[in-house]
Amino acid sequence: MRPVSQPIRVFVTGGTFDKEYDELSGRLYFKDTHLPEMLRLARCRLDVSVRNLMMVDSLDMTDGDRRIIVESCRSAAEDRILVTHGTDTMAETARALLAAGLGKTVVLTGAMIPYAFGSSDGLFNLGSALSFVQVLPPGVYVAMNGRVFPGDKVRKNRQTGTFEDLA
Amino acid sequence: MRPVSQPIRVFVTGGTFDKEYDELSGRLYFKDTHLPEMLRLARCRLDVSVRNLMMVDSLDMTDGDRRIIVESCRSAAEDRILVTHGTDTMAETARALLAAGLGKTVVLTGAMIPYAFGSSDGLFNLGSALSFVQVLPPGVYVAMNGRVFPGDKVRKNRQTGTFEDLA
Amino acid sequence: MRPVSQPIRVFVTGGTFDKEYDELSGRLYFKDTHLPEMLRLARCRLDVSVRNLMMVDSLDMTDGDRRIIVESCRSAAEDRILVTHGTDTMAETARALLAAGLGKTVVLTGAMIPYAFGSSDGLFNLGSALSFVQVLPPGVYVAMNGRVFPGDKVRKNRQTGTFEDLA
Amino acid sequence: MRPVSQPIRVFVTGGTFDKEYDELSGRLYFKDTHLPEMLRLARCRLDVSVRNLMMVDSLDMTDGDRRIIVESCRSAAEDRILVTHGTDTMAETARALLAAGLGKTVVLTGAMIPYAFGSSDGLFNLGSALSFVQVLPPGVYVAMNGRVFPGDKVRKNRQTGTFEDLA
Repeated sequence: MRPVSQPIRVFVTGGTFDKEYDELSGRLYFKDTHLPEMLRLARCRLDVSVRNLMMVDSLDMTDGDRRIIVESCRSAAEDRILVTHGTDTMAETARALLAAGLGKTVVLTGAMIPYAFGSSDGLFNLGSALSFVQVLPPGVYVAMNGRVFPGDKVRKNRQTGTFEDLA
Repeated sequence: MRPVSQPIRVFVTGGTFDKEYDELSGRLYFKDTHLPEMLRLARCRLDVSVRNLMMVDSLDMTDGDRRIIVESCRSAAEDRILVTHGTDTMAETARALLAAGLGKTVVLTGAMIPYAFGSSDGLFNLGSALSFVQVLPPGVYVAMNGRVFPGDKVRKNRQTGTFEDLA
Repeated sequence: MRPVSQPIRVFVTGGTFDKEYDELSGRLYFKDTHLPEMLRLARCRLDVSVRNLMMVDSLDMTDGDRRIIVESCRSAAEDRILVTHGTDTMAETARALLAAGLGKTVVLTGAMIPYAFGSSDGLFNLGSALSFVQVLPPGVYVAMNGRVFPGDKVRKNRQTGTFEDLA
Repeated sequence: MRPVSQPIRVFVTGGTFDKEYDELSGRLYFKDTHLPEMLRLARCRLDVSVRNLMMVDSLDMTDGDRRIIVESCRSAAEDRILVTHGTDTMAETARALLAAGLGKTVVLTGAMIPYAFGSSDGLFNLGSALSFVQVLPPGVYVAMNGRVFPGDKVRKNRQTGTFEDLA
């Protein structure tokens, strides 16, 4: 089995991945996505196109936002799609994508620590998600903590900050 | 297709991944592997066991070193194995592993920039390799630049520093 | 003029210097001071003793907190004292220290970006403040942006995030 | 005593400060100086002009190189000068500057760990040296480890990697 070298679409939606520190207000905020910089640092040689859909904390994500994500995945020319997403409602968006029956391989990932911090898990998760999206059959998946979960069988454990199987 | 949750063995052999800066001599050297620290930073929740086989620059790797790697993979209890390795002779070790006909999934990965530097590709490659090793069938693979290559169809391009298909 | 090699006392009060990212809540918070780690990284060979007085955002600092800082400086055995402090009310605490007429060299410093982030100005400011405190005569000073200001002639410009002379 | 706000000249000569990792050769090398980036990160608001004199390992510095440094300091319009320098022969260059009797305040500094690495002492040393150069009287000094040494009374201890008084 050789991973396909089909083009991969990355949809950015914000989340901890892309949080920045605003030195004037002392608060975290969103400015731009770090995805292109991360792909450069990773010396990634995949055929990846990045598109920024929104820049929101996933706790603030609305049903309308989720419809935009679903429709963007549906109308994308690519069959292999990565969605960067805040971790808090990642499982909820996975359900929305599943319900849409897209017939594509969609992998959601995110980070517990902002990439702009020196010690983020984001680069590891990006490498993981971009690998799973190349080899998994059509479906919706969450890639976190080095693991991959079917989109309807996963939840974030708020106490530990890790993802786990939904019994 | 659900990735197996079988245990994963990681064999460390050195390479750029684990190079450090010696502030007394001003030279790069090997001290300890950063793998456990990287897995912690990544919040990795896989069943991973790390074992240090050697700490060498892959240009200095001997046939004897390669036999140690092959035999360690053969005698490991695990069927899914990750080998961290210098990039210069990674393809050569992949051939040695292929020739041994192990019947296991073995993925080699490495880094172009030492992890101890702030801007390494190592964490991305580790996330990628740990993902491929969970889902690929038995065989020997190289995971670099977000891509995965069959062990007998890959070479490092010394001019660009990236891995490419062997025509 | 040779800088004295007298012992230096560092009083930690919190501020951006020591903010951390809480990955469970997604908020910034205080845990422990990074001062000892920063001094180690800096290979600092001064006779420095660090004591944690409080861990607060300087916007939340009360008159009572300022009395604790003043009294700690007064009763310290050392005549050369560094206070790490949030930038928002650093000038106010400098006035309180001046009013106390301590007859010691007290330098306040802080950071615009948390040290836990990879790209903080904290290490630069710490090097600057520890240098000024060795050579300046008794008085109260603010060391920020590479400059040093008398404690009664400084203010933070909230628009630019830098310190400037009070006309 | 108020630190002067006279302009400061920075002469860059290379040293560990500015070493980079060459990912194609796996060796350390010099490309460009990081000084402007470091001053930006530090939010430095001093009147600093940076000029690159050379990019050498201080073990390779020749008598001719030292003459260039001395003459550059002599002909500079500024009376306050910072020289970034490799640590191995920093004391030797300090003697050459002293012998020239410049009547200016010249401070040499450097780093034990390259700035391009995440955990360098360079930013601390830069903050320290830029502070000492503002307040010390004419003379030649070495600023390392948070301390400042007269140029004729200092040596690097090769065993510990720190600077100490010459008895």
